[in-house]
Amino acid sequence: MVEKLRIGIAGLGTVGSEVVTMLQMRAGQLSGQSGRQIEIVGVCARDRTRMRPFTPGPWTWYDTPEALAVAPDVDIFVELIGGEDGPALNAVTLALQHGRHVVTANKALLARHGLELARLAEAGKVALAFEAAVAGGVPVIKMLREGLAGSQINRISGILNGTCNYILSKMETEGLSFADGLAEAQRLGYAEADPTFDIGGFDTAHKLALLTSLAFGTAVDRDAIHIEGIESITLADIRAAAALGFRVKLLGVAERNEHGIEQRVHPTMITHAAPLSQVMGVTNAVSIDADAHQRLTLIGPGAGGKATAAAVMADITDIARGNVPHPFAVPATSLTPGERVPMQAHRGGYYIRMFVEDRPGAFATIATRMAEHGISLESIMQRSGTEHFLGATCVPVVLITHATTEKLVRDALDAVLADGYVSERPQIFRIERE
Amino acid sequence: MVEKLRIGIAGLGTVGSEVVTMLQMRAGQLSGQSGRQIEIVGVCARDRTRMRPFTPGPWTWYDTPEALAVAPDVDIFVELIGGEDGPALNAVTLALQHGRHVVTANKALLARHGLELARLAEAGKVALAFEAAVAGGVPVIKMLREGLAGSQINRISGILNGTCNYILSKMETEGLSFADGLAEAQRLGYAEADPTFDIGGFDTAHKLALLTSLAFGTAVDRDAIHIEGIESITLADIRAAAALGFRVKLLGVAERNEHGIEQRVHPTMITHAAPLSQVMGVTNAVSIDADAHQRLTLIGPGAGGKATAAAVMADITDIARGNVPHPFAVPATSLTPGERVPMQAHRGGYYIRMFVEDRPGAFATIATRMAEHGISLESIMQRSGTEHFLGATCVPVVLITHATTEKLVRDALDAVLADGYVSERPQIFRIERE
Repeated sequence: MVEKLRIGIAGLGTVGSEVVTMLQMRAGQLSGQSGRQIEIVGVCARDRTRMRPFTPGPWTWYDTPEALAVAPDVDIFVELIGGEDGPALNAVTLALQHGRHVVTANKALLARHGLELARLAEAGKVALAFEAAVAGGVPVIKMLREGLAGSQINRISGILNGTCNYILSKMETEGLSFADGLAEAQRLGYAEADPTFDIGGFDTAHKLALLTSLAFGTAVDRDAIHIEGIESITLADIRAAAALGFRVKLLGVAERNEHGIEQRVHPTMITHAAPLSQVMGVTNAVSIDADAHQRLTLIGPGAGGKATAAAVMADITDIARGNVPHPFAVPATSLTPGERVPMQAHRGGYYIRMFVEDRPGAFATIATRMAEHGISLESIMQRSGTEHFLGATCVPVVLITHATTEKLVRDALDAVLADGYVSERPQIFRIERE
Repeated sequence: MVEKLRIGIAGLGTVGSEVVTMLQMRAGQLSGQSGRQIEIVGVCARDRTRMRPFTPGPWTWYDTPEALAVAPDVDIFVELIGGEDGPALNAVTLALQHGRHVVTANKALLARHGLELARLAEAGKVALAFEAAVAGGVPVIKMLREGLAGSQINRISGILNGTCNYILSKMETEGLSFADGLAEAQRLGYAEADPTFDIGGFDTAHKLALLTSLAFGTAVDRDAIHIEGIESITLADIRAAAALGFRVKLLGVAERNEHGIEQRVHPTMITHAAPLSQVMGVTNAVSIDADAHQRLTLIGPGAGGKATAAAVMADITDIARGNVPHPFAVPATSLTPGERVPMQAHRGGYYIRMFVEDRPGAFATIATRMAEHGISLESIMQRSGTEHFLGATCVPVVLITHATTEKLVRDALDAVLADGYVSERPQIFRIERE
C-alpha cells in the first residue's frame, strides 16, 4: 500500500453529498481496486450548517473553493460548484497550477475553458477528469478517450438532456402539449424554474462540445455549434412524426463531412428502428459510428445524484491507479482548431409542417416552389385539424423531402411564404439516418 | 517521446491481419494518444506464405507462439491463436512469466485459466488485457473494470453470441424454422459447420464467466454456470412469445440474490420495452444494473475482424499509456471463490409450452397440478395448430406463471407428465424483467 490519496471536495449539494457517502461506504472496495487508501481531507460549501445525509468526517472546512484548491494536503480537487466562470474557474485553475488533480462535473466550465484547462493539466502532469460532465451515469467520456482508441470516429449523436427527452416522451405517450410537458417536468424537479438552458438546447450543446473534441481531436468550441431548442414542437408534429414511423428527439450531432466537422443541436426525426428512438424519459444515450465498430450505443441515466457521483468515483479511482490520460485523449497542443461548418450546407431529408390556406392552387404552388429549388418530395400529406388565419381557413400540411440541403429548403420556404398561402413560418425537423 | 513499444502478434487470421493493418495505418494517432511509438517486431502464423491483406513489415517471423512470447525484444504479446489449452496457454503463460504484457481475444482460455493467468500478470506487474474476448466491438470489459469503479453491480445480462441472436431474429422476422435459420447463419459464415459451441450456449457462458468476475469480484468459474442452448426453440414458441408482447433471446445473466451470484445462460422471454429486446441480428448488447446507475446498456457489433481488432488496439493503447489495471479489476488474490447457485432455487416467471391431448379434463388437470405446487398462473392459452401423439389429437397450450421457483415448476411438470395428457417434455423459457 503506497501513500494515501487525499481528496478535497468543493460543493456539497446533491452530487457532492453522494460522493462523500460513497467514499465513506466504499473505502475498502476502492483501495482494493486502486491499491491506495482514499480519504477526504477538506471540504467547502456555501452553508456549513445545512443538514446533509452523511456524518461529517475529521476533515477541514475551507471558506472558499480557491483556498481548498491550494490546500497543501489535497491531491485531488473535486469541483462540484458549477458555473462557467467565477469561483469554479478560479479554483480549478489554481488547483491545476498547484499540481492537484481535478475531477469535475462542470460541463459549462469545460465547454468554455476546456482547452486552456487541459493545457494547464498537461503542464502539471495531472488529471483533468470529467466523466460526470456528460450523461452522468453513462461512461461515454472514458469510452471515447480510451475504449475507442485506435478507431476512427465518423459521427456521434446523442440524447444528452434528460429534461428535453422527458418532455418529448410525455408529449408522445400521454398526448400532452409542450407547455404541459414542461410544467410536469418542473413539478418533478427535472426542469428549472427558468428552463431556457435545457429546452433551448444549450445544455446539450455544452455536452456535445466535449464529445466532439474527444471524438474528432478538435479543440472544444461551443460557439461552432448550431443550436435550436424544442420550444416550437407541437403535439401535432409529434403525432405526424409517429404516423410516419418516426419519433422526435432533441439530438446533439457531430459528424465528419466534406466541409469539416458539422456540430448541431436541434429536434430531429428518427425511425423507430434506431436505438436512440427507444430511449424515453430522462434517460440519456449516445451512438458512436466508428469505422471499425459500425455503431456503438450506450444508454443510461443522464443525471441524478447517485449516477453523477458514481462517475466522479470512477474518475477518482482512475487517478488512484495512476491512470492520467490527456483530458481530450491527445495532447492539447495537437488538438486542431474547431471550425464552424455552416448549417446552410447541411445535407439530409427534411420534415416540413405548415398551415396552408384551404383554396385551389395552394398545394400546386407549394409543390412547384419545391421543384424549382430542386427538392424532391417523398410525400406530401394533409393532416387533420384546421386553423384560421386572416379570415381564411388553413389546414396543416406535412412534406417529407428526399435528401437535399438546408439552403435549398430555406430558399424554397422563403418563396412559399412570399406566395402568401401559409399562415406562419413552417416547422422544420431534420431527418437523421440513425 | 519515450522508448518504442514493441509488439509481437501470434495468429494472422482475420483479426490478426486487421490488427497489423490498423497498427500500420494509425501509427501517428496512437503515438499522439499514448506518447509512445508502437511497432510490430515479430509475428507468428501457421502459414507464412498465405496471401494477407497487408504489406509485411521488417519484422521477424517466429516458428512457434512460444518462441515469439519470449523473444527478447517483445514488450506486448498479442495472442490471436485461440483454443483454451495448447499453444495459446503455453505462449501466454511464458509471456507473462517473462514480463511481457499480454493482449488476447481468447475467451475460452480466460474462462478456464483466467485466475491463474491474472496471478501471473500481477506477479510480473504486466497487463493481461482482453477487451476483444467479450462482445468484440463493445468496450464492456473496460466499462466494468474502470468505468463503473465505485458502483456496486447487482445484475448483468447480455446478448453475447451473435450467431444465436441472428438465428432467433431470422425466425421472428422471416418466419424461418430453427434449422433454416441455422442453415442461413452457416451460409453467411456466422455459424460454424459444427455449431454446437454457439447454439449450445457455451460461447455465451465463456463470456459470461469473464463478465461475472469483473462485475462481482468472484474468481472466473465457467463450471458454475447453468447452460441451456437454443436448439429446442420452435417457430411456434417465437410466435406465442410475440403474441404475448415478448421476444425470445439467448441471454447470459449473472445476478446477486440471497443464495449468492446466480449465473445462467438460457433462452429468455423479455418484453419489447427492454433495450435488449430491440437488439437484432449479429449485434451484441449488455445491460448492467448498478446501485448508482439504475440500468446502463451497451449495444454494438459482437464480432467481425475490424471490431475485434479495434478492441485489441484499445488494449495496446492503454498499455502504451501505462494504464495497467488488475485483469479482473481487483487483485486476483482478493477475488472470492465462485460458487454454483443451484438453478432449482431460481425465482421468476415462466413460459411453459406443451402439447396437450384434446380431451375433456386435460386443462383442468394441468391447472390443478400447478395449483397443488403453489404456482399461480397469469394466463393459460390454447394456440393454433395440432399434433398427433399415440393416436390422440394434441393442441399446443401455453402457460405463463407469476413468479415462482424453478423447483416448483419442474415438480409440477413432472406431475403433469405423469398424468399422461402431454405428448413430450414441455418447453420452458424463463421470463426476465429486463
